[in-house]
Amino acid sequence: MTYIASRQFAYMYSKKKSLADLKEGERVDDIFVVKIKRSMKPYAKGFMFSLILSDASGKSIEYSYWGENEEARVKEIHDAIKEDDVVLVKGYSRIFNDRPGITTNPPDSIRALGRGEYDPAEFINPAKRPVQEMVEELKRYISGIRNPQVKKVLERIFIQDEEFLRKFSTHPGAIEIHHNWTGGLLQHTLEVARYCQLSCEMFPDLDRDVMIAGALLHDIGKMQEIEVTTRIKGTVKGQLKGHIPMGYRALANIMDELGTDERTANKLLHIVLSHHGSGEFGSPKEPMFSEAVAVYYADDMSSKLSSVTEFTKEEKKSTENDFMYHTRQRKNIYLR
Amino acid sequence: MTYIASRQFAYMYSKKKSLADLKEGERVDDIFVVKIKRSMKPYAKGFMFSLILSDASGKSIEYSYWGENEEARVKEIHDAIKEDDVVLVKGYSRIFNDRPGITTNPPDSIRALGRGEYDPAEFINPAKRPVQEMVEELKRYISGIRNPQVKKVLERIFIQDEEFLRKFSTHPGAIEIHHNWTGGLLQHTLEVARYCQLSCEMFPDLDRDVMIAGALLHDIGKMQEIEVTTRIKGTVKGQLKGHIPMGYRALANIMDELGTDERTANKLLHIVLSHHGSGEFGSPKEPMFSEAVAVYYADDMSSKLSSVTEFTKEEKKSTENDFMYHTRQRKNIYLR
Amino acid sequence: MTYIASRQFAYMYSKKKSLADLKEGERVDDIFVVKIKRSMKPYAKGFMFSLILSDASGKSIEYSYWGENEEARVKEIHDAIKEDDVVLVKGYSRIFNDRPGITTNPPDSIRALGRGEYDPAEFINPAKRPVQEMVEELKRYISGIRNPQVKKVLERIFIQDEEFLRKFSTHPGAIEIHHNWTGGLLQHTLEVARYCQLSCEMFPDLDRDVMIAGALLHDIGKMQEIEVTTRIKGTVKGQLKGHIPMGYRALANIMDELGTDERTANKLLHIVLSHHGSGEFGSPKEPMFSEAVAVYYADDMSSKLSSVTEFTKEEKKSTENDFMYHTRQRKNIYLR
Amino acid sequence: MTYIASRQFAYMYSKKKSLADLKEGERVDDIFVVKIKRSMKPYAKGFMFSLILSDASGKSIEYSYWGENEEARVKEIHDAIKEDDVVLVKGYSRIFNDRPGITTNPPDSIRALGRGEYDPAEFINPAKRPVQEMVEELKRYISGIRNPQVKKVLERIFIQDEEFLRKFSTHPGAIEIHHNWTGGLLQHTLEVARYCQLSCEMFPDLDRDVMIAGALLHDIGKMQEIEVTTRIKGTVKGQLKGHIPMGYRALANIMDELGTDERTANKLLHIVLSHHGSGEFGSPKEPMFSEAVAVYYADDMSSKLSSVTEFTKEEKKSTENDFMYHTRQRKNIYLR
Amino acid sequence: MTYIASRQFAYMYSKKKSLADLKEGERVDDIFVVKIKRSMKPYAKGFMFSLILSDASGKSIEYSYWGENEEARVKEIHDAIKEDDVVLVKGYSRIFNDRPGITTNPPDSIRALGRGEYDPAEFINPAKRPVQEMVEELKRYISGIRNPQVKKVLERIFIQDEEFLRKFSTHPGAIEIHHNWTGGLLQHTLEVARYCQLSCEMFPDLDRDVMIAGALLHDIGKMQEIEVTTRIKGTVKGQLKGHIPMGYRALANIMDELGTDERTANKLLHIVLSHHGSGEFGSPKEPMFSEAVAVYYADDMSSKLSSVTEFTKEEKKSTENDFMYHTRQRKNIYLR
Amino acid sequence: MTYIASRQFAYMYSKKKSLADLKEGERVDDIFVVKIKRSMKPYAKGFMFSLILSDASGKSIEYSYWGENEEARVKEIHDAIKEDDVVLVKGYSRIFNDRPGITTNPPDSIRALGRGEYDPAEFINPAKRPVQEMVEELKRYISGIRNPQVKKVLERIFIQDEEFLRKFSTHPGAIEIHHNWTGGLLQHTLEVARYCQLSCEMFPDLDRDVMIAGALLHDIGKMQEIEVTTRIKGTVKGQLKGHIPMGYRALANIMDELGTDERTANKLLHIVLSHHGSGEFGSPKEPMFSEAVAVYYADDMSSKLSSVTEFTKEEKKSTENDFMYHTRQRKNIYLR
Repeated sequence: MTYIASRQFAYMYSKKKSLADLKEGERVDDIFVVKIKRSMKPYAKGFMFSLILSDASGKSIEYSYWGENEEARVKEIHDAIKEDDVVLVKGYSRIFNDRPGITTNPPDSIRALGRGEYDPAEFINPAKRPVQEMVEELKRYISGIRNPQVKKVLERIFIQDEEFLRKFSTHPGAIEIHHNWTGGLLQHTLEVARYCQLSCEMFPDLDRDVMIAGALLHDIGKMQEIEVTTRIKGTVKGQLKGHIPMGYRALANIMDELGTDERTANKLLHIVLSHHGSGEFGSPKEPMFSEAVAVYYADDMSSKLSSVTEFTKEEKKSTENDFMYHTRQRKNIYLR
Repeated sequence: MTYIASRQFAYMYSKKKSLADLKEGERVDDIFVVKIKRSMKPYAKGFMFSLILSDASGKSIEYSYWGENEEARVKEIHDAIKEDDVVLVKGYSRIFNDRPGITTNPPDSIRALGRGEYDPAEFINPAKRPVQEMVEELKRYISGIRNPQVKKVLERIFIQDEEFLRKFSTHPGAIEIHHNWTGGLLQHTLEVARYCQLSCEMFPDLDRDVMIAGALLHDIGKMQEIEVTTRIKGTVKGQLKGHIPMGYRALANIMDELGTDERTANKLLHIVLSHHGSGEFGSPKEPMFSEAVAVYYADDMSSKLSSVTEFTKEEKKSTENDFMYHTRQRKNIYLR
Repeated sequence: MTYIASRQFAYMYSKKKSLADLKEGERVDDIFVVKIKRSMKPYAKGFMFSLILSDASGKSIEYSYWGENEEARVKEIHDAIKEDDVVLVKGYSRIFNDRPGITTNPPDSIRALGRGEYDPAEFINPAKRPVQEMVEELKRYISGIRNPQVKKVLERIFIQDEEFLRKFSTHPGAIEIHHNWTGGLLQHTLEVARYCQLSCEMFPDLDRDVMIAGALLHDIGKMQEIEVTTRIKGTVKGQLKGHIPMGYRALANIMDELGTDERTANKLLHIVLSHHGSGEFGSPKEPMFSEAVAVYYADDMSSKLSSVTEFTKEEKKSTENDFMYHTRQRKNIYLR
Repeated sequence: MTYIASRQFAYMYSKKKSLADLKEGERVDDIFVVKIKRSMKPYAKGFMFSLILSDASGKSIEYSYWGENEEARVKEIHDAIKEDDVVLVKGYSRIFNDRPGITTNPPDSIRALGRGEYDPAEFINPAKRPVQEMVEELKRYISGIRNPQVKKVLERIFIQDEEFLRKFSTHPGAIEIHHNWTGGLLQHTLEVARYCQLSCEMFPDLDRDVMIAGALLHDIGKMQEIEVTTRIKGTVKGQLKGHIPMGYRALANIMDELGTDERTANKLLHIVLSHHGSGEFGSPKEPMFSEAVAVYYADDMSSKLSSVTEFTKEEKKSTENDFMYHTRQRKNIYLR
Repeated sequence: MTYIASRQFAYMYSKKKSLADLKEGERVDDIFVVKIKRSMKPYAKGFMFSLILSDASGKSIEYSYWGENEEARVKEIHDAIKEDDVVLVKGYSRIFNDRPGITTNPPDSIRALGRGEYDPAEFINPAKRPVQEMVEELKRYISGIRNPQVKKVLERIFIQDEEFLRKFSTHPGAIEIHHNWTGGLLQHTLEVARYCQLSCEMFPDLDRDVMIAGALLHDIGKMQEIEVTTRIKGTVKGQLKGHIPMGYRALANIMDELGTDERTANKLLHIVLSHHGSGEFGSPKEPMFSEAVAVYYADDMSSKLSSVTEFTKEEKKSTENDFMYHTRQRKNIYLR
Repeated sequence: MTYIASRQFAYMYSKKKSLADLKEGERVDDIFVVKIKRSMKPYAKGFMFSLILSDASGKSIEYSYWGENEEARVKEIHDAIKEDDVVLVKGYSRIFNDRPGITTNPPDSIRALGRGEYDPAEFINPAKRPVQEMVEELKRYISGIRNPQVKKVLERIFIQDEEFLRKFSTHPGAIEIHHNWTGGLLQHTLEVARYCQLSCEMFPDLDRDVMIAGALLHDIGKMQEIEVTTRIKGTVKGQLKGHIPMGYRALANIMDELGTDERTANKLLHIVLSHHGSGEFGSPKEPMFSEAVAVYYADDMSSKLSSVTEFTKEEKKSTENDFMYHTRQRKNIYLR
């Protein structure tokens, strides 16, 4: 089940059919996102170009525009399309080299839509838990914190900055693989907090406040690392710096401003820096105290279980095989 | 806090002072376990031998018996002591080469006690949760299973075989590092089950029955791999075969006997085989479906958190340093 | 040279031409095995589906059925074909996207054959040594064992259970790479035994009986891990559990039944568990005594030499290059 | 050759003999740094405690105070000593368990000196290049930068903040292994810059300004990661966060304040984050453009060559062996 | 900028257009190198064969000859072409399966040219520094050597054997990736020497003569490992033995002949053997003294910087993406 | 059983008691080898120095000379002793810091013996197979070679150079771990050849001549890498270059001289270079054809089996434990 905010008003164009359901030989008159744009090339009868189109289904399809022998005209169409644009495509679906494709032959055409002509929400997977319910759970965790220094940090970030909370609560958790949907980041954050809460109950030596705060803050750098345009994608700065250093810096600056005591600050920052467990996975420090160890395992468990259960659900739909190879995890997954 | 069953009757000798509290230069008249026995050697004034003694504190100490120049007599004392014996030692504590030691010089002596002369429970760390409380939690998990095939397996192992349950509920979870106390195996088993239970609540595609059963059964091979004499130690067969294959075989034989359907049997057996995650850590198969992934992460989280919190608690007592090196995990742990 | 049992009676259909010899543009009227079945899809002129076909040559080829615009009729043909079926195909060979393929256009068709219509032996590579000769060699090894406990185990498994011996002596040793032919498992088993026999002669401290028995038994789990239908393939249970734990369990149960003494049993079981050398390659225990080390190296040498010599022989036929990349071993092999 | 700033005034106590030159059986009346303090213990004749002492030679020595049987009095002496204190020690050197040691027996004693009683410079290795000469080289590099954005960043950090420059120019480069002396950080920084300058001359596509700035800035986080008290040591925050994230944050904040353009800022920050080459060595990002690759290799070459040449020089003095094992680099070094 | 020796005389055929600039649908009448030759196959209308053609641009293209139904005639054309031949091709460029290709249909044809009909220099990338300038720099390095034993070795190899110097100064440094152009080996050799020269200036303990000589000699085995025909390619012996052992042997034999003292000889040979740093990268010994460490890092820095800067330059031309995946280095490179 | 050539004549001093049998508190008047020499140091009553002594048992013992307060006199004694000397020691055995030691107090003394005063054979472990028998087996292998090119190489090395054969047939195979005794190299060489011979019988595609020759030649570089003085030790050149490149070069030079055809030469040289299997273990090339694969596995099997069986035999003597840790192989070995 998925939850979508009710649409405020009608858009001129809306998505008709998911790429996942497109069949060969159909008439296409639908909207897609431009994921990759390739340059224009001459061919036997004129000039052509190709694109990779995608939609919220996560599927991609190759698109070809086979223009006539008027270079300037094809160039004009080509130049008007940019990556991340939503395009209105008229043409036909076909199988080409065993792979599905969409072809436009004039007089059919393709054009980029303006911002107001479509609903961007149609291009991102919808939330899997109601956003408001998740926000309330987040607030309950914060109000349960007893250490005033820690509480102040969480309130400063998640409560007082309403704009941040609004964005944080709908941000996806990753580009692909796991929690890659509206609100995925908050959903993942709460899963991590819940595992940590349970750890507290079983290992009473753990400092609940530091651990829960670490859980809630561990991925805030993702707000800068990935962005949502018409699709979820990595920012340039995110690829060059990574969400771990960016989240570390954002948190450190806020705690400096708030005058958080050094021991607390060091612990929260260490949790952010170490939450991928080791250098091999991007953490410049390994977890060096119990609460950091707890957040690291909770993060790993939440993301890996999300990844495997989503993979299994998707693959079960499309194959009758007992096993399917999971490329990222480099092993077969048993689907039955 | 630790829980010990009330003693039934008095023993002739009982432990007076923990090795952790022994100071240099004290008179010693106490009982210890023989961890390692070394052979007898001549020295300037006669014949001597040394032992490594330990007790429930987990500390070990070097013991030396400096006998007189009567080979036969020293040999008789030496021959009467075997590894795992509980010995009554009279002598003095001393620092030798910067390390603590206990020395016996005649007429003081050392002798092995008989089974009835001491309480074996004094040599194993006591349970950290009341055993009965844990058994009830285990039974609640079993009664909550809906799949009759799975329930039958769990009842056959944990309910119908009372002798097994009695042993299982007091068995330690490991030789050292984590859950190495009376009832540690059951405590760890329940921690794994709880993480799995929480995973179910967040990832509803998971098959709760298979996962909880996998959690409860994953370590049953430990019943054969480690044994409790006067100390916790690995069995010879355990070192040659490992608890993963042994637990796999025990479970497979029982399910064959019960006629468990093949799909359920394969899943439970796969969980047992894959619960260490990869070949590097002793699993001949990596987890290949979601429930196996969940048990693997839960097992890892329970054992690592137990290990780090215990380490921190112990080290905080004995050092004022901010950091202490954790040999097993090959990193510094921050203690403040 | 290869050895095939003489055929008992004639089948209706038999293989005409190996896939390795199929040329482009030929008329095809032959039988193949269905390795992978894909779902039916609409195309410009109707409905089509594709299969991956194979035969004993080890080669695979893509097959396409381009049906007419009658969904029910194509569906009926498609539904009647299952993976592992032997199919009678009429059509043409062609090159499509630089890859070889077979195409059927109605009125030509494809249909699954019944069990009695073809000879299954045509789809598995024939034995490379006469099976009877190998069985005699196996029996000589067994009769040479002096330790009665060990001998009893071997006789119970290989001699008394004639059905098992019959299957064991024709089973393949692997799905691909090495010894993947009728009798390959026994041939490999004997190679391992011979290397061990030679090790005995050079290292007289080795316990010949334990080592030879370990060599003969090390791969018995393969009987459950792989199966031969119309092709060699992994079983579901084999993929979830692996031949090492399955062989371990089978052997342990038999030795329990026979009352084999614990030291002997531990040694033989350890050899089975450790014969892949390390966790990285699927052994939950590394070889911990000399005889286990000997079997591990012998197994590795037999399989790697078989793999490289077969690869070289095959590649020499199909290329004039000096070197050919061996994907599994991730290195170039010199062919001259 | 080493360079030391001339002493401003005389201190009450000064170092008499390096630990490297101390012989057994000598009278000791000298000053040392307390590296590790251990707790007080009773012994046969009273109460004792031990310390690890060190000095600028890099050598450490075990120290024992064997007090009389007056617990309060020994406790007072023990309590008055803290880690990093400079202590005035009277006693004798001796060999104990084959290791050198210093022993104090009353009436000889030990006491911590106050800040003004000794010259802290005596406890850190002196600079290997004149500090002023290095500062001038640094300034020449900065004045050679053409890109005004980049120049502004460097001037803000190294020129305008005189206090920072003063500290930066005398800071050590590491705790041990390489550049662990006064001014070592600046010396290493300039070595990296010189290799980069040479790379520019050979690979003209490199952006000199970005690369030289990256070289000068790459290790600024070391100012927070290590500190110089009476010895060079890691800070708590440094061990929990590391110089890479700390340097990244410091630089990012300054560039934000200066309004450095995003492309330039991203490049400089990426160089800081990636300069250890890979996650294994603490970099959350691998070098992703040529200038970052150049700084990474230059940093590695400077530190490894410094380490090996220093090791060789030291070991040549103390052994006649041809080879000596280099623990950090896990290989033998040839000394001839 | 590239430097080419002026052409001595005109050849009958010369290259018209680089493969990098070929557009779809163009008439082709040009010369190429045959990189891979595939066997002849029947197709619907006759017999065809395909080749992989390349030129100095480093690009490759698939070529297809679609002959008529006269097997003998097509075979004659096919048989006359060998790998490494330069062929004169008439036909058309086309896009086939989204990949560029060249097709010949009779009466157009293809034929191998004789040695005198084309200029081989057209098929190798031209030098990036004037060869003569590099030779002079090499000679300056040699004349700067003071140790007469070392100098004698260098003069024997590089000065007295003029034929060797002529070949060495135009040899490429690698098949692909870095310095894969005329004179690339010498250019790389001098880059390594320059980094070493700078290391000397900063680390005066280094033995300049041994290090510079090691730098100049480290890759002489490449003269045997790779060869230049109409393209740069690995020799059979090079693939079986590698340039490190071959260079080691060549140098050792010359030094034996010259009577170089053993210590010097050992050092130079060790530098050659260890210059890839570790076994993982082909060095049978890790660098064991400072000069070997210096040459290793210099070699790595020269080749990696060359590789990344060349990659960036090439990719910038062909994509507008911010990042491009570098297959060899397994990471994204940032191009802006 | 071990085989020693009968002694030709009596030496002045001979070994009285193996270090393995030395007990504490015994009078010592025996000969030992000086393995490590340490420098002279002052102590409370004068000047002392220490040595590490060893003998053929493989055991080492710390030796201390506690001289009087006459520096010149102790220095004279100290100066007269060099590493590898055989020394005549008078003194007492003792346990010091729990480790065995030998102490000399004047007037007892220590002095280095001259070459003729002792039998060097007493300090190396004796051969385990009669040397003459092994030489005959080697010759049979050579005479069984059919390929005249290969045979010529073997005869040139092993038959025509009698001096070489004499040394080769008594050389040890390694410094420690396996085959570290007189004739160990030839014994190991023949074990490798026998495994290869068996491989031939089972894999008839293998080229027997090339493989057997590769087996016989694979370790000839050990003749230069290790040397026998009064103990087995690595040469300086061996540590800097390794037996693989040295054996490669020696063989290559001989084959050049004989004019061996290139294909045969490449194959034999590749076998030498690749016989450690991968760069990690010192081979600059991995085995690239079947015969090289066969020699690699045979070498590994011979050395590992020798190592484990020797370890087991030794440890069984000295412990009653079931398991003993094998430091080199990083695992426990089961001894029962």
